[in-house]
Amino acid sequence: MPDFFIETTKAASVLPTNGRPKFFMFGVPSYTNMGDQAVSLAARKYIEAEFPEFEYIEIMEDDNESGIEAVEKIITSQDIVAFVGGGNMGSLYTDHETARRAVFSTFVNNLTISFPQSIHFEETPFGQKEQRLSQAAYKKNPHLFLVARDAQSYHRMQTTFENRVLFTPDMVLYLKPRKFNFKRSGALFVLRHDGEKVVDEPLMDSMKTILDNGRPINRTDTVLDSVDKISPLTREKLFDQQLELFAHQEMIITDRWHAMVFSVLTGTPCLLFGNSYGKGKHAYVDWLEHIGWIDYTDETDPKRLKQIVDRLMTSKIHDFDLRPDFDQLHFLISRHLETIK
Amino acid sequence: MPDFFIETTKAASVLPTNGRPKFFMFGVPSYTNMGDQAVSLAARKYIEAEFPEFEYIEIMEDDNESGIEAVEKIITSQDIVAFVGGGNMGSLYTDHETARRAVFSTFVNNLTISFPQSIHFEETPFGQKEQRLSQAAYKKNPHLFLVARDAQSYHRMQTTFENRVLFTPDMVLYLKPRKFNFKRSGALFVLRHDGEKVVDEPLMDSMKTILDNGRPINRTDTVLDSVDKISPLTREKLFDQQLELFAHQEMIITDRWHAMVFSVLTGTPCLLFGNSYGKGKHAYVDWLEHIGWIDYTDETDPKRLKQIVDRLMTSKIHDFDLRPDFDQLHFLISRHLETIK
Repeated sequence: MPDFFIETTKAASVLPTNGRPKFFMFGVPSYTNMGDQAVSLAARKYIEAEFPEFEYIEIMEDDNESGIEAVEKIITSQDIVAFVGGGNMGSLYTDHETARRAVFSTFVNNLTISFPQSIHFEETPFGQKEQRLSQAAYKKNPHLFLVARDAQSYHRMQTTFENRVLFTPDMVLYLKPRKFNFKRSGALFVLRHDGEKVVDEPLMDSMKTILDNGRPINRTDTVLDSVDKISPLTREKLFDQQLELFAHQEMIITDRWHAMVFSVLTGTPCLLFGNSYGKGKHAYVDWLEHIGWIDYTDETDPKRLKQIVDRLMTSKIHDFDLRPDFDQLHFLISRHLETIK
Repeated sequence: MPDFFIETTKAASVLPTNGRPKFFMFGVPSYTNMGDQAVSLAARKYIEAEFPEFEYIEIMEDDNESGIEAVEKIITSQDIVAFVGGGNMGSLYTDHETARRAVFSTFVNNLTISFPQSIHFEETPFGQKEQRLSQAAYKKNPHLFLVARDAQSYHRMQTTFENRVLFTPDMVLYLKPRKFNFKRSGALFVLRHDGEKVVDEPLMDSMKTILDNGRPINRTDTVLDSVDKISPLTREKLFDQQLELFAHQEMIITDRWHAMVFSVLTGTPCLLFGNSYGKGKHAYVDWLEHIGWIDYTDETDPKRLKQIVDRLMTSKIHDFDLRPDFDQLHFLISRHLETIK
């Protein structure tokens, strides 16, 4: 449970002023993409576990403007401002990018952290215009640190912005693996319907043929349609349900990075196909290549795909530990805490 | 030209004591691997260009023990100790690892930087014993920073050592691209003969068939046999000759990471095959995937390989800039300079 989250413009009057340093997490989503929900959840769990000194306050992205106003009234130099991680820095999701610019360019006197993101500004006049807007906004904040969740994004952030850039995995990989011991049955296709989609239907049909030996085959997306909105109060239960769903499967076929992450956490065999600009591929190669029951591929040949699927489905579950890879983020926040002591 | 380099045990008496802060670079190779020579050269050029405040002193790895003794006599808190980068941290090259341990565990009161490396401790009793020796040695130095040159190595360093870990490309990628404008002719196979070799000869034979349309085909390695030893005084000329050799080729086929780097610097089409534990692959995916005239592959099907070769040989040369990616290293050294002002 977060200490506090802001959903209305009345928030300023009810924000706690108890003297503890505050960690303001902006950009918290209410939309039903469970990948993004898991990112928010993991960020909160990270701060609560590693830095319990902070009062953790979540500001919903829907209320970004009023949230900024509310926080401006009570923020002090001991507080940290952050914006949620994910895969939406750049020109593909201008709502998020606009909210991010507003936060970064407002709290220019506070340690400000852009949580682990991948980044993609399109090489079009529109994309480049968006990039200039972000460059101008981020530049205003000399205390802003960007965190990249893959090396390609690290390079892009370093060459796009003047801010310092840290390198960690996606926040969801901070969460501990879970053991459910369900009897696994069936293959689940977890596929995008949005603009990043590149996997074609004939390829997915041949994957179905590969996996069809009488086992149930279902299709879904990590974007839920069973609920309209998710709040910090409801997301953990929905996240647990998502993991349970994955833990029931023999195999996950997906083009969603976070479906691979949920497969990692639940020990579920998973094959990830590319999205439109390789964000899943890079995060996989950088952090997860040593995990045996998952793989990334650009392959289209059914014979080779069958070999990969067979290997993944017979792969043994083993321990892994990505927590030390968050060290650069940990050090940044630790150092801040030392300066305010 | 380095300010100074140490080749004999007499060095202590001739080391400069002119009051400038010193940058002691240990582990400088005299063996004829041009990849490692280029790494040393690039590190010197980096410090000389970005931090001219320092007197740059190179200690040959052959003289590691006497070099340590000489440096111990004159070092002060304003000086930085470093050990050269490369692809030899771990249990495969115990000479280098032993030298590195000695340096790190001696200068425990100075800022100590392990320059960009990849790391591989074998999962054998021998490899794990070597790992424990390195853990014990590195742990003694609270001012030691490790720099990883790819994300896989970053993860391995974070999970193996307690020291802080930075993330930058291989030092040679700091060097500026060169334009030679030679008429290109022929394909050059640049292949390992050492223990990291995995590319098999039948595969290379089929690569020769793919490339053979009457053009000259030659084979070499980035380890020179034309000289016995290389010193900081002779390496730049030999490095320039290597780049010239590459700039004459239409195509480079290699299993050497630095042959890919030389191809990047000279705008030479290059296809890199895997070594025994993926160090080239990861560095490629992390830093160079956006460069059009080079590629990495695990492919073995001649038809697909021909497609890749054709694409690379018709790819246009474009600008690239990896210098911002050295920012974490830059900041570490800048911050040190601020503290000694």
